[in-house]
Amino acid sequence: MKKFRLFTPGPCAVPEEVLVEMARPFHHHRTDWFKGYMKQAAEKLQQVLCTKNDIIIITGSGTAAAEAAIVGCNPPGSKLLTVENGKFGERWGEIAQQFGMNVIRHPVEWGTAPTAELVADFLKKDPAITGVMVVHSETSTATACDLKAIAQVVNQHGKLLLADCITSAGALPLKTDDWHVDIAITGAQKSLMLPPGLGFLAVSERAWKVIESNKNQHAYYLNLNKARKMAKENDTPFTPAHLLIRGLVKALDIILEEGMEHIWKRVAAMAAATRSAGEAIGLKVFSKSPSDSVTALCPPAGIAVKDIRNELEKRYGIESAGGQDQLKGKIFRFGHMGYVDDMDTLLAVGALEQVLYKLGHKFNLGAGVTAAQKVFAERL
Amino acid sequence: MKKFRLFTPGPCAVPEEVLVEMARPFHHHRTDWFKGYMKQAAEKLQQVLCTKNDIIIITGSGTAAAEAAIVGCNPPGSKLLTVENGKFGERWGEIAQQFGMNVIRHPVEWGTAPTAELVADFLKKDPAITGVMVVHSETSTATACDLKAIAQVVNQHGKLLLADCITSAGALPLKTDDWHVDIAITGAQKSLMLPPGLGFLAVSERAWKVIESNKNQHAYYLNLNKARKMAKENDTPFTPAHLLIRGLVKALDIILEEGMEHIWKRVAAMAAATRSAGEAIGLKVFSKSPSDSVTALCPPAGIAVKDIRNELEKRYGIESAGGQDQLKGKIFRFGHMGYVDDMDTLLAVGALEQVLYKLGHKFNLGAGVTAAQKVFAERL
Repeated sequence: MKKFRLFTPGPCAVPEEVLVEMARPFHHHRTDWFKGYMKQAAEKLQQVLCTKNDIIIITGSGTAAAEAAIVGCNPPGSKLLTVENGKFGERWGEIAQQFGMNVIRHPVEWGTAPTAELVADFLKKDPAITGVMVVHSETSTATACDLKAIAQVVNQHGKLLLADCITSAGALPLKTDDWHVDIAITGAQKSLMLPPGLGFLAVSERAWKVIESNKNQHAYYLNLNKARKMAKENDTPFTPAHLLIRGLVKALDIILEEGMEHIWKRVAAMAAATRSAGEAIGLKVFSKSPSDSVTALCPPAGIAVKDIRNELEKRYGIESAGGQDQLKGKIFRFGHMGYVDDMDTLLAVGALEQVLYKLGHKFNLGAGVTAAQKVFAERL
Repeated sequence: MKKFRLFTPGPCAVPEEVLVEMARPFHHHRTDWFKGYMKQAAEKLQQVLCTKNDIIIITGSGTAAAEAAIVGCNPPGSKLLTVENGKFGERWGEIAQQFGMNVIRHPVEWGTAPTAELVADFLKKDPAITGVMVVHSETSTATACDLKAIAQVVNQHGKLLLADCITSAGALPLKTDDWHVDIAITGAQKSLMLPPGLGFLAVSERAWKVIESNKNQHAYYLNLNKARKMAKENDTPFTPAHLLIRGLVKALDIILEEGMEHIWKRVAAMAAATRSAGEAIGLKVFSKSPSDSVTALCPPAGIAVKDIRNELEKRYGIESAGGQDQLKGKIFRFGHMGYVDDMDTLLAVGALEQVLYKLGHKFNLGAGVTAAQKVFAERL
């Protein structure tokens, strides 16, 4: 018997109930039946994102949703600052460049978080900047920034804030309206417990003003003006992946039944337990500002990330993630998003110990699990 | 008891086996496991499209795939002719305009098909034209053109041919390589028997040369160069809707087991039977050049399309499509794509008769079904 366990930081495990929901027969999407699902999905997503802003649902990945925001919010004459502390931050800068926008791409050391001070310095020095894009939880380095503080600075300067919340929404506290995040972007296959295929945006009135003025934007399929017009009627401009939207409503029901406050607390405990366990068995936590939705650990000296991940998969069916680009071979990552709870996390920590033991790492077997258990006992 | 029957020209009915396949637990997409599905999907799609060209799979609707083709194939200096004989043809012209391309948008009367002569005239008069986009089966008017003849003309002039095959692929004979169609575009939710969420392109070497030269195209998520690079390794540049790709492989197995020749024959018979039945009960077939993948019928005088469609849905759970834009209230449509066979078509014809009878239309009850039966007896 070999069980399969998905611990990657997206796609994440999907509840069986959601998978079954999506296997049910479906109607056409230009029907009241489907509009009912769209309406529910938008309303429930607003609760997850703590916002009253319009919700736009796009059939595509999180990148598609981010592109829609970047292209929509940057008409000619605008100037975008992208703060890039990992692979995804870099991607948003690349999009702006690919579309020929005026963009300042500011690299930040991987594994560290951009600060509000950094953003404030840019805005003070360069009043031509019209918008700032940051990554709330940078999945590639397992690093979270203080989005609330950054939003405060961006708002003080009256600029637009675009936030990649793809691995923060539904995992880390995210108060879109209280913090005044103009566009919060997320995707299906992370904390929303769905298979991939949908991207979401919560768009503020201030952002809509800019997007609406941007008539000649290079966007059709990902054009937010078209999307908004249809979203007002719980519809979409192009045929949506309605199977996933149906699953989304079921997943959101499960999420909202637990409640955002408890999810945030549980996810934080799972991340703290994983970090604590890692340190207890001699593994360094990579990030200086770790995200609670994903943990990146460095392998012990002399043991390859590849071997750890292969053994986890081979012996326990655990799929973890490696490092990307410059971090390839230097870290391995466990997600704390989606359909995984504290005891699943304990299982993953236990499996990691078993694997490291077999691979010859010297440590007190059980120390990791014990450390995790202490965190859970104290926090949950 | 009320059974539900999807007869819209997309989304189309999905085999239960495909729905169940998609409900199975899934692994991460950056794995050999998933690459195996990608490889199979591409190879089997090549068989459906009768091509050896590269297959590109995009998470998005057919419109997303079409946008990728239009943007990719039209670098500065190009000039695109879009031949528009319905809502979808118009959409392709709109995309070219939205991206600021040099485009000639040529309207053709709805319900008629553009001819090879028409295209030849344009190409002779205007040698600056670099590409032509046509709709093989225009879903909005249920009209098919002679793509083979148009392709011949476009090839004689050495231009690129982009073909919207969204409702032709897998239903009408489509010989991408024999006819030299440079880009054949299709989508999941039609004859490929999947729920919506994926778009596909088969791209010729001649088209790739143009796309590869088009470095600064306004495309990132829908950038075909990025997609090709990853497709070579059975991978995707952005997280794909892998649930649907898994379902796709299963659906393609079912399709290829029947075989393209037989499917084309069966679909043609289903369409002929529907047209014949319509005429037998006094309904006009709307198109002067009807597609075999979808049939548009005009309602009898004095009976509203809305009432026919509502009754079909209310009494028999049959979802049909109405007319779009200028055809609203003037036609109703039945699809012959996806998981519907000849006896399903007979059922739909029978239900249509029952409904028209109740609504007061005067005709010989049973004449439609009998006409359909004769077609099936002769053809299948």
